Amino acid sequence: MRGYTKFLEKLIEELSHLPTIGPKSAERMALYLIKSPPQRSQSLAEAIINAREHTQRCSRCNYFSEQEFCPVCLDIEKREKAICVVEDPQDVIAIERTGRYNGLYHVLWGQLSPLDGIGPEDLPFKKLLLRVREENIAEVIIATSSNREGETTAQYLKQVLLPLSVKVTRIARGIPVGSNIGHIDLATISHALDGRREVSA
Amino acid sequence: MRGYTKFLEKLIEELSHLPTIGPKSAERMALYLIKSPPQRSQSLAEAIINAREHTQRCSRCNYFSEQEFCPVCLDIEKREKAICVVEDPQDVIAIERTGRYNGLYHVLWGQLSPLDGIGPEDLPFKKLLLRVREENIAEVIIATSSNREGETTAQYLKQVLLPLSVKVTRIARGIPVGSNIGHIDLATISHALDGRREVSA
Repeated sequence: MRGYTKFLEKLIEELSHLPTIGPKSAERMALYLIKSPPQRSQSLAEAIINAREHTQRCSRCNYFSEQEFCPVCLDIEKREKAICVVEDPQDVIAIERTGRYNGLYHVLWGQLSPLDGIGPEDLPFKKLLLRVREENIAEVIIATSSNREGETTAQYLKQVLLPLSVKVTRIARGIPVGSNIGHIDLATISHALDGRREVSA
Repeated sequence: MRGYTKFLEKLIEELSHLPTIGPKSAERMALYLIKSPPQRSQSLAEAIINAREHTQRCSRCNYFSEQEFCPVCLDIEKREKAICVVEDPQDVIAIERTGRYNGLYHVLWGQLSPLDGIGPEDLPFKKLLLRVREENIAEVIIATSSNREGETTAQYLKQVLLPLSVKVTRIARGIPVGSNIGHIDLATISHALDGRREVSA
């Protein structure tokens, strides 16, 4: 006998697909679920299904939403006429938590990456340009990562935004090169927002 | 906006109940599940439910089983007339993987711990004594942990087993004091099995 029961082995396998979870952690998690009261595993399974079913993308900014518009876009009248362009939804949460920004967002759900075949038509840039015009936006803050793909994306954004009559800024390089905004401490993100500079042609 | 959507926050909370998972890991796992194809989260949820529903305890040795008897107990005729008493089901897997033991098991699903109110009547000792007689067992190997509760459990086992006409052994102290059998490398477990000594009164 080299393993657990069929269903338990399947659970360990499924859990080990999760990020940062190795086989030992997956085994420990599976045994925990088996040993806990049935409600624990029931409510985890339900939470997974519910989150998947009820989480869609805001039809304006692409951030997570349970309805057509996300909480930020529903609050659009009280928000400043600025759009902060980020790569991932967790970047929105990270910036919101600083309490230093009161504008809108545009989530790209990715970076330009020619090597991976991700070009301008794969990310919602057209929708961003449309929003800048229709929502009468005064400033676009480029908050892509400071790694190579993030800089490529920023360069592209600068290029398509500068012809419009909108102020274009890039958050300051307070953030360490090569790292991802969603994993940075709040103070550093605050400094980066404060130190943003206008982009010249 | 201080958090994600309601359902996503619920998923992060449920995931952070898992052992060794902090809030940051839970967030990363939840976002991974949201971004992956729906089949990924569907099959994880199903694996959790299936493992919980189809995993019961072997009615002989208390190890995991999908039917009345576990694979080891179904194979009882080919196994040696020995019972290795362990605390947790993962200890069975750890010992099986060494390939150095061909007997039966008895899973206690815990340790004696007077401070936590866990006494002899809370663990399946009576069933073990019954098995020793009915299955004509020649040797009982005590393989509880080498921490305080494990030693207390071993002492109790020694006390109730010695009056029976069965050889009682304790796996050797090759395993580091204070650690749990399920987390030890195979070579050390092999040595511990080889070096077991008979218990005297």
